[in-house]
Amino acid sequence: MAAVGEQAGQQQVKKVVLAYSGGLDTSVILKWLQETYGCEVVTFTADLGQGEELEPARKKAELLGIKPQNIFIRDVREEFVRDFVFPMFRANALYEGVYLLGTSIARPLISKHLVEIAAEVGADAVAHGATGKGNDQVRFELSAYALNPHIKVIAPWRLWDLTSRTRLLAYAEERQIPIAKDKYGEAPYSTDANLLHISYEGKALEDPWVEPDEAMYTRSVSPAEAPDAPTYVEIEFERGDAVGIDGVRLSPAEVLTRLNELGGQNGVGRLDLVENRFVGMKSRGIYETPGGTVLLAAHRAIESITLDRGAAHLKDEVMPRYAELIYNGFWYSPEREAIQALVDKTQERVNGTVRLKLWKGNVITAGRKSPNSLYRLDYVTFEEDSVYDQRDAQGFIKLNALRLRLGAMARGK
Amino acid sequence: MAAVGEQAGQQQVKKVVLAYSGGLDTSVILKWLQETYGCEVVTFTADLGQGEELEPARKKAELLGIKPQNIFIRDVREEFVRDFVFPMFRANALYEGVYLLGTSIARPLISKHLVEIAAEVGADAVAHGATGKGNDQVRFELSAYALNPHIKVIAPWRLWDLTSRTRLLAYAEERQIPIAKDKYGEAPYSTDANLLHISYEGKALEDPWVEPDEAMYTRSVSPAEAPDAPTYVEIEFERGDAVGIDGVRLSPAEVLTRLNELGGQNGVGRLDLVENRFVGMKSRGIYETPGGTVLLAAHRAIESITLDRGAAHLKDEVMPRYAELIYNGFWYSPEREAIQALVDKTQERVNGTVRLKLWKGNVITAGRKSPNSLYRLDYVTFEEDSVYDQRDAQGFIKLNALRLRLGAMARGK
Amino acid sequence: MAAVGEQAGQQQVKKVVLAYSGGLDTSVILKWLQETYGCEVVTFTADLGQGEELEPARKKAELLGIKPQNIFIRDVREEFVRDFVFPMFRANALYEGVYLLGTSIARPLISKHLVEIAAEVGADAVAHGATGKGNDQVRFELSAYALNPHIKVIAPWRLWDLTSRTRLLAYAEERQIPIAKDKYGEAPYSTDANLLHISYEGKALEDPWVEPDEAMYTRSVSPAEAPDAPTYVEIEFERGDAVGIDGVRLSPAEVLTRLNELGGQNGVGRLDLVENRFVGMKSRGIYETPGGTVLLAAHRAIESITLDRGAAHLKDEVMPRYAELIYNGFWYSPEREAIQALVDKTQERVNGTVRLKLWKGNVITAGRKSPNSLYRLDYVTFEEDSVYDQRDAQGFIKLNALRLRLGAMARGK
Amino acid sequence: MAAVGEQAGQQQVKKVVLAYSGGLDTSVILKWLQETYGCEVVTFTADLGQGEELEPARKKAELLGIKPQNIFIRDVREEFVRDFVFPMFRANALYEGVYLLGTSIARPLISKHLVEIAAEVGADAVAHGATGKGNDQVRFELSAYALNPHIKVIAPWRLWDLTSRTRLLAYAEERQIPIAKDKYGEAPYSTDANLLHISYEGKALEDPWVEPDEAMYTRSVSPAEAPDAPTYVEIEFERGDAVGIDGVRLSPAEVLTRLNELGGQNGVGRLDLVENRFVGMKSRGIYETPGGTVLLAAHRAIESITLDRGAAHLKDEVMPRYAELIYNGFWYSPEREAIQALVDKTQERVNGTVRLKLWKGNVITAGRKSPNSLYRLDYVTFEEDSVYDQRDAQGFIKLNALRLRLGAMARGK
Repeated sequence: MAAVGEQAGQQQVKKVVLAYSGGLDTSVILKWLQETYGCEVVTFTADLGQGEELEPARKKAELLGIKPQNIFIRDVREEFVRDFVFPMFRANALYEGVYLLGTSIARPLISKHLVEIAAEVGADAVAHGATGKGNDQVRFELSAYALNPHIKVIAPWRLWDLTSRTRLLAYAEERQIPIAKDKYGEAPYSTDANLLHISYEGKALEDPWVEPDEAMYTRSVSPAEAPDAPTYVEIEFERGDAVGIDGVRLSPAEVLTRLNELGGQNGVGRLDLVENRFVGMKSRGIYETPGGTVLLAAHRAIESITLDRGAAHLKDEVMPRYAELIYNGFWYSPEREAIQALVDKTQERVNGTVRLKLWKGNVITAGRKSPNSLYRLDYVTFEEDSVYDQRDAQGFIKLNALRLRLGAMARGK
Repeated sequence: MAAVGEQAGQQQVKKVVLAYSGGLDTSVILKWLQETYGCEVVTFTADLGQGEELEPARKKAELLGIKPQNIFIRDVREEFVRDFVFPMFRANALYEGVYLLGTSIARPLISKHLVEIAAEVGADAVAHGATGKGNDQVRFELSAYALNPHIKVIAPWRLWDLTSRTRLLAYAEERQIPIAKDKYGEAPYSTDANLLHISYEGKALEDPWVEPDEAMYTRSVSPAEAPDAPTYVEIEFERGDAVGIDGVRLSPAEVLTRLNELGGQNGVGRLDLVENRFVGMKSRGIYETPGGTVLLAAHRAIESITLDRGAAHLKDEVMPRYAELIYNGFWYSPEREAIQALVDKTQERVNGTVRLKLWKGNVITAGRKSPNSLYRLDYVTFEEDSVYDQRDAQGFIKLNALRLRLGAMARGK
Repeated sequence: MAAVGEQAGQQQVKKVVLAYSGGLDTSVILKWLQETYGCEVVTFTADLGQGEELEPARKKAELLGIKPQNIFIRDVREEFVRDFVFPMFRANALYEGVYLLGTSIARPLISKHLVEIAAEVGADAVAHGATGKGNDQVRFELSAYALNPHIKVIAPWRLWDLTSRTRLLAYAEERQIPIAKDKYGEAPYSTDANLLHISYEGKALEDPWVEPDEAMYTRSVSPAEAPDAPTYVEIEFERGDAVGIDGVRLSPAEVLTRLNELGGQNGVGRLDLVENRFVGMKSRGIYETPGGTVLLAAHRAIESITLDRGAAHLKDEVMPRYAELIYNGFWYSPEREAIQALVDKTQERVNGTVRLKLWKGNVITAGRKSPNSLYRLDYVTFEEDSVYDQRDAQGFIKLNALRLRLGAMARGK
Repeated sequence: MAAVGEQAGQQQVKKVVLAYSGGLDTSVILKWLQETYGCEVVTFTADLGQGEELEPARKKAELLGIKPQNIFIRDVREEFVRDFVFPMFRANALYEGVYLLGTSIARPLISKHLVEIAAEVGADAVAHGATGKGNDQVRFELSAYALNPHIKVIAPWRLWDLTSRTRLLAYAEERQIPIAKDKYGEAPYSTDANLLHISYEGKALEDPWVEPDEAMYTRSVSPAEAPDAPTYVEIEFERGDAVGIDGVRLSPAEVLTRLNELGGQNGVGRLDLVENRFVGMKSRGIYETPGGTVLLAAHRAIESITLDRGAAHLKDEVMPRYAELIYNGFWYSPEREAIQALVDKTQERVNGTVRLKLWKGNVITAGRKSPNSLYRLDYVTFEEDSVYDQRDAQGFIKLNALRLRLGAMARGK
């Protein structure tokens, strides 16, 4: 009978590039791909700033029979911050008013490398370890398809029958895949990490009425444990991007790394959220985004003195859509690129320095200055002045009121 | 010589209703109106929760020769929160990403009463004490014109020549208007207060690179002085409005009063901002909005489990426009009312309870629950389940990707 | 073999309500449902104004073995226009700038009846005859699921193997399903019709460089064949809905019927379009919407004198989203309902009369008047006047220009 | 007495550049500027395609005492279409759903030249002949201030007392300003013309219930007088701009000129509108935009096959705002430029050819083709195919429906 929809092993796959972390799950996937498709597997392991060594992943890939020339390990931290995180922060992107999109923004970068490596090694497929209920599968696959419309995508979690922890472990044991001791028990939550953030979701967090365990956090000290003395930090911006901290010019990844340290030390950037997934259900996530939280505050502050009102309000109006596009996986879409062009156009003179005070979870704007400042003391002072004729306000109000008055008259007032 | 535009004393005014605080400035205005227009002056003093006694205003009005029947003093706190603050919070309104619109939202209410009193007493004009450089003149006047298109509006600050402190004081002394001792010196900043917030702007705050003096704040303790133990608070919502705190049902003004106390005690709700005025320049303002800051977090949290994604994202997209309308003074406009209808429609099932942790400036979501919750553990769990077929995700992704793939193919990929 | 995704006959179905036209395709579906699921089939045939007799559908259903109590035939024309077409026209909805959504708007109505009948007769499933490549399957199913989240939906075209004309005809012949003579050949295009429009797509129209055959059109004479004398028509509106024509009060369906006659006689309402389907590809459609084309022009014209500018521009900004929602099948969604609340709020005073001239394909506004008109000759005249002080314009312009001037100065001008 | 607001002769003006048509009104202004300000007057007369000789303007300026080196006459037609009209058409801009912005788009160009000439000749002011009730004063002045924040703007119609026809004529006669015979009577309407359109408004058109006189139109034959045979025209596009007609490559102004001829001959492009002015009232305007009407239809048609859905819908959503900005005079604003960047980004592959049929007022799309077409017959056909798996639609629908189903369940369904 003709197969229906997607089905394990059904596709002909010659060579597949797998997004490989070196962990248990993607190691099982590696083996399963070999067995199910009888194909050559190429691994791609990226340093996105998740804070893990990559060499163990290489070792493990070799152990699982991957040829050295099929093992790709790349440090993509600068690319990640420069080409993905920074453009997104130019838009002040927040999903559902609060979420800094730390997971969402990393996925297109990974797919970009998967597709590029596939072209290099002549692979016809890519594979990822995201489940069938989440957003990440969508983000991986939309990006991959947008970059290579002919690529095959294998999503083992939607295909195989290793759908319980027990079966997965059994499969791994049978194939002599090394299993770290702590992997035998059920993890209380799953995490995703990169230079922008770490997320937690699942099991122990599933009741949105219950606070998370303080012990869970890894990127920030508890605000209650943070120093009593505030940390002041000065962030320099050029064309909307942070280019230096406290007088020292830094690369994009260095900026974010430093802001993570400063924010994390001061208990900044925790978020507990029930969010709407693109696949249709609500889920609860906890995020730590110390550097990103600082950066957003700083960017809004530098914009506050350098950005024209019309441009600023326009940006604010398109931002929710932009954030939604990134959350939903449409980074490589014509509409995200068009909004990016709009956003980037507004950043041409977003230059200057912002001073922030970090203290026990708080990010407090303590100053902003710019060679391109649009803030003009002479226009805003209460003094008599020549630059602004207060009587102009009357005409301004009268004409703004005219349609409201005509409307009221038409209603018989 | 033919008068051009607005000009002091030029209009014929029979009777004018003045928004009267009892302070020096509006007392001078009171006198000036009498002298300039030779007209009867009616005073309106409102308790908006600004934290001042109103009886002294009555006394002072009497002293300045206002007839008792021309003195209107009203406690409008419940009306303010119920009909203005709460509808605005249903929209999660933030101006320029951060400002809770505490001043903006009070102005239409005052104008509403001015116009109503004018109708009651047969006055043909209203007057206010806002200057010619600010937003408040616009808000007062647009509201007044929208409610009574035939009303005359007198804005003495745009008309008279008392444009320096010295001249104002001289004028007051000549007319024996009582001057509080602290009014002789120049105030370091001007403030506006009501149940939602207090604002500070001007002189001492004019350099946006300089932090405000800690001594300035009046509504919140410094986060550094706040208690070491967190305060947990549970806020109950019905149709998007807060109706109870910690199990006690409260009126709108009681809710906000209580949240102000709780927030203020924990150093919550301070904001230092450079904002874009409707009249065209940037200005720097400092705000304390303790209760409002708590309320916004709570409202977003209750929406996070009760609001459909489509409705939530739509609201987020129209919010900046809605906030801009309120900031600019268009509360009584067809477009604000139309967006309100949209917003209110989404709040029909925004019921439930949010638990927040207030601590040293932080507002942390600690739990949310609702009889109308859309969060479904069975749909979000990693377990195998019958309700969600993971394989549906493939079709979902494939069709979402189709236009991106066709686009890539057309570009020769 | 383990079934993957949706599969014919796989679901347990007890009783299914089929959207039944009486034509060959849905008759085959009827039989196929009986055979495949062994279930009771209930038919629903609606008079949406498609211009076909319904009694033959009843006869045919009986012939195919449907019990009389399982045959539902309803005239839903008034409901269609009143509850679906008119609300949509209040928004001036156009998909992709030009398409009046004639097919899209009928689908949710059909699903509403399918789901209601399912509840009445105790059916657990509904079925429709839309294909797997089009928008209609989405519209039918999203509506059905939104109205009954537990309903099963059967879409035979996505399931069966009758995927060629030959097989379909063979299946019909084997089951002695009557086949109209003209059904043996391949139709040059498929159509969908209701009181709002008729659409054509497929085969003969597939090359977007080629004009359609003039003989195809059925709802409008060719502009070239239309009368030389224009038809003037006056349409009366109340709260944004057309309620009368040429002085005669009419029901919603009567209004649209009459406008179809008048528009059709004058060659009005043809559209040749390449549009973007929700499922991801572009398709070419030809539409005739004579009455709708007239109605849109009339509605815009009555709004032009009765709607406030702020409300009008707001509506225009949300319209594309609203049209997209309807096109994509989200009629029964919280966000469509929220936008509807916004739109309806603006229509409260959209009353009056519009005079149009219909002539050889043209719809020309020839006049508009309203008891609620906001057009005021005294304000617009070039004469000197007391109502509008031209000098107010200076202040209006100066303050609107201020930020632009400050921006230019900051750029060194 | 201190002057209030703007006042004639009050400003010190050294040298002023006047937008000079050579007509009676701007000739009177010329004289009035000399007399009122005792300043040197420089004239700028532009060929925008309004269809008038420019040499008589030179003669008249000389006659009125303007030095030859102070007379600037420029043919700006190519600049107008290339830098203003075409960018606007990339956005498919329509104000209030129907108006092609023919007057609005010309004003910033004129101001640009006024300001440039002012810089060349060392003038400190510019002047225009727009009245105090219209939009044009706003457009002229916002553009001038944005380009030179220090420029003075003189708007005689808001300042002088020549506010009746009689006084204006008397003033002209006294100064021996030549008056064309037809200028003695009152014109039945005022017009504005350029290569994009001609407008009519005022007196004879003031009752929106009355049709305009057929004799008024000058750019198009009456549809009733248009040829019986249709005109087919093929328009070639590159990156969203029309670059050729019927196989002949043309410059921007040539394209628009040719489309005006073709459209005008076929009675295309008339519009009768009540619109909302920026200054607050509604006004009635009649427009002829033959070439623009054709161009809009062609541009939408070429986009229909070359533009991605996401980009297309995004453009449609921002279009009303973009059109409003241009209508209101904010061409030279950061937000218009930001939206332009968005729009231009989408046009990168909007290449190809559109075939239109022009006939008695109708513009009918007769074909579109493109080397970058996204229309794919193989994806849209009803046939069985390998490229599109119809069963993907099930998952697509199921996940799109999920939130709607969960919502229905939460409502107890």
